[in-house]
Amino acid sequence: MATIAQSVADVCRAAKRASRELARLDTGTRDAALNAIADAIDARAAEILDANARDMEAASADLSPAFRDKMRLDAARVTAMAEGVRAIVALRDPVGEVIEGFRLPNGLDVRKVRVPLGVVAVVYEARPNVTIDCTALALKSGNAIVLRGSSQVANSNAVLAAIATEAATAAGVPEGAVGLVAGGGREELAELATQEGLVDLIVPRGGEGLKAALKDVATVPVIYAASGNCHVYVDAGADLDTAEAIVLNAKTQRPGVCNAAETLLVHRDAAAEFLPRALRALREAGVELRADARARAAAGDLADSLLDATDDDWDTEFLALVLAVGVVDSVEEAVEHVNRHGSGHSEAIVTPSAESARVFRDGVDAACVYVNASTRFTDGFEFGMGAEIGNSTQKLHARGPIGMRELCTYKYVVEGSGQVRP
Amino acid sequence: MATIAQSVADVCRAAKRASRELARLDTGTRDAALNAIADAIDARAAEILDANARDMEAASADLSPAFRDKMRLDAARVTAMAEGVRAIVALRDPVGEVIEGFRLPNGLDVRKVRVPLGVVAVVYEARPNVTIDCTALALKSGNAIVLRGSSQVANSNAVLAAIATEAATAAGVPEGAVGLVAGGGREELAELATQEGLVDLIVPRGGEGLKAALKDVATVPVIYAASGNCHVYVDAGADLDTAEAIVLNAKTQRPGVCNAAETLLVHRDAAAEFLPRALRALREAGVELRADARARAAAGDLADSLLDATDDDWDTEFLALVLAVGVVDSVEEAVEHVNRHGSGHSEAIVTPSAESARVFRDGVDAACVYVNASTRFTDGFEFGMGAEIGNSTQKLHARGPIGMRELCTYKYVVEGSGQVRP
Repeated sequence: MATIAQSVADVCRAAKRASRELARLDTGTRDAALNAIADAIDARAAEILDANARDMEAASADLSPAFRDKMRLDAARVTAMAEGVRAIVALRDPVGEVIEGFRLPNGLDVRKVRVPLGVVAVVYEARPNVTIDCTALALKSGNAIVLRGSSQVANSNAVLAAIATEAATAAGVPEGAVGLVAGGGREELAELATQEGLVDLIVPRGGEGLKAALKDVATVPVIYAASGNCHVYVDAGADLDTAEAIVLNAKTQRPGVCNAAETLLVHRDAAAEFLPRALRALREAGVELRADARARAAAGDLADSLLDATDDDWDTEFLALVLAVGVVDSVEEAVEHVNRHGSGHSEAIVTPSAESARVFRDGVDAACVYVNASTRFTDGFEFGMGAEIGNSTQKLHARGPIGMRELCTYKYVVEGSGQVRP
Repeated sequence: MATIAQSVADVCRAAKRASRELARLDTGTRDAALNAIADAIDARAAEILDANARDMEAASADLSPAFRDKMRLDAARVTAMAEGVRAIVALRDPVGEVIEGFRLPNGLDVRKVRVPLGVVAVVYEARPNVTIDCTALALKSGNAIVLRGSSQVANSNAVLAAIATEAATAAGVPEGAVGLVAGGGREELAELATQEGLVDLIVPRGGEGLKAALKDVATVPVIYAASGNCHVYVDAGADLDTAEAIVLNAKTQRPGVCNAAETLLVHRDAAAEFLPRALRALREAGVELRADARARAAAGDLADSLLDATDDDWDTEFLALVLAVGVVDSVEEAVEHVNRHGSGHSEAIVTPSAESARVFRDGVDAACVYVNASTRFTDGFEFGMGAEIGNSTQKLHARGPIGMRELCTYKYVVEGSGQVRP
């Protein structure tokens, strides 16, 4: 646990030094380190739970039950952390993957090869399992990692980082490869975000407040794991059972996450038949509904129980059991609405029409576009990436889930037999 | 030429509007627009040369011959511009390329599809052909472009942008897709670099001054087409003819560009035989040589004609016929020197040893690593990308040549049959 007492700059310097060695470490050694971490988590579960119990005891009574649940670890969650690490071991090493390769007319062989970024910093809130998920993704992809968790789970994170560090180091990973920044304040955040030349990428996982705090100060490259204002659009002729199941899933299966739906749009030709049954089902699931005039008109005997959608509602990520509901004249109008109000995260159309699917798929400007499926699948684990650092709604470098490959850059390796440029 | 009189924000707004339509335009229409631009350049060559003549007349007498040469157009260069556009037409459309695709266990089909970024801004100096190269790359990749050239060739750039705009619009490209920012001042640069939500990427091509000017103000994503402090390392046992040819080519074939070599490193076992002949050849080519003590000791009767290399020389991109020369004990020491002093652009080793090649290739942290070839090949055209916006030494998004693909992002398209998350 030597890293805990270091300054932010010290942690980053040690990580940079370690990263040069890590990049050259073979896959077997890195996988062995991950297995050692998984085993250590299992073996030291009591210690982890004890630290977490101290965090829970110290937690302010003001915290919501949902937040306390995010903080809490139990035996099953500890086991799941270890299993998550083993799942990442099972994936192919992204380092050294040849992204493409070709021979130039002069005989030069060019390969575009995936290599680690170097040092990745992650800023995150609550969930202690992120400490282990991110460490595993970073080490598997040959990167050093600097972790900055939230103060509410400082004891849990410190024990988890120490376990990971000790296990990894014993397995041959260089010292400093896993660094934990102590102190959850804005000063540490600003210091971390300005370690130019030491930190190659910083990924903040959190709300708009964290994003704003970083945007003002960051001089190292940032990918924001940002918020999601996601839509489900039900097209004319959609199968109503399918549409209802998708809307319910996208809104209610886990309303507090970024890939949950916040707005339902319905084609005018489907509204009169679909809205009464869908809104009833949503209401029975506890969803507060905020409708525009046309949705209200199509809602039948539910009309009086609907709230009026305000202009702001279309732009709001509720992260709760609240849904804005509107009626549109066409798939083109749905695309326009999504592009104007969405955050470029995950957008779904339910339609039997190949042409509507094409218009929506090509027209919507978002990281993930779903045809006849729930928005809830935007997730590194669901996409087969083992886990994720977060979800990017940016367009540069990484869009959508940030997994191991997204923690890599590439280099061109060019091999010749004495070629010079004429 | 309506764009010329607009404000920076107006140009960017028009480009954003156009970009949404451009992204949906089929390949045939975009290719037809590029062919129309190429034909218009040929047909209006006299007009282009006339505008350029006015720039040359107005040019300050203080400008160096090399800079004046960069500004100048002649009939052959105008023809080459048109041919360059046609070469880009011949390449496959990057938009819609499936980068990867897979089926999830639940039956969802996931495709990672290349899509345009939206609006790309390029800030560049002198060479008027950049106006056309960048426009062609942007349109081919479905992007709108905002050009900000230098005031010295304002007449040339204005005519070229007008020709491109008129030809492209007549061929079906939306108005505003090609925008030219008038005025070469720092104010316009700052305005361009802060068009958040309108400009998706800004690429500055230029020296460290431009980079510093942008770093302070930019709020839109930037990829710096940065400087190159490139090395050639001659390993023990290297074929001396090959090594000499590569060093001469890397240093002298075009010394003013970013992929030219600035430092020669020689293994101590090769120094006594290689340095006398290589340094003689370099001197005969007009190269000023700045050597460390060990290189001087190995230089034979040339020793007295060498300058002493200062600490600064190892970190300097001379962009001229000047070369720093040093002797190292091993390939590992060469890698260490390159990583400490290089700018991560292009690095070459000349060696007969597979093991030395591996150590150098894996150990050097740079966009392009060459084994037995000149550094001068780092170039979008040479790599078969048609042309390039510039060369990135960053690690995020694009590293090395920035071509059409690097002007794109991707989206995940997920197609299902009603899947919801359990």
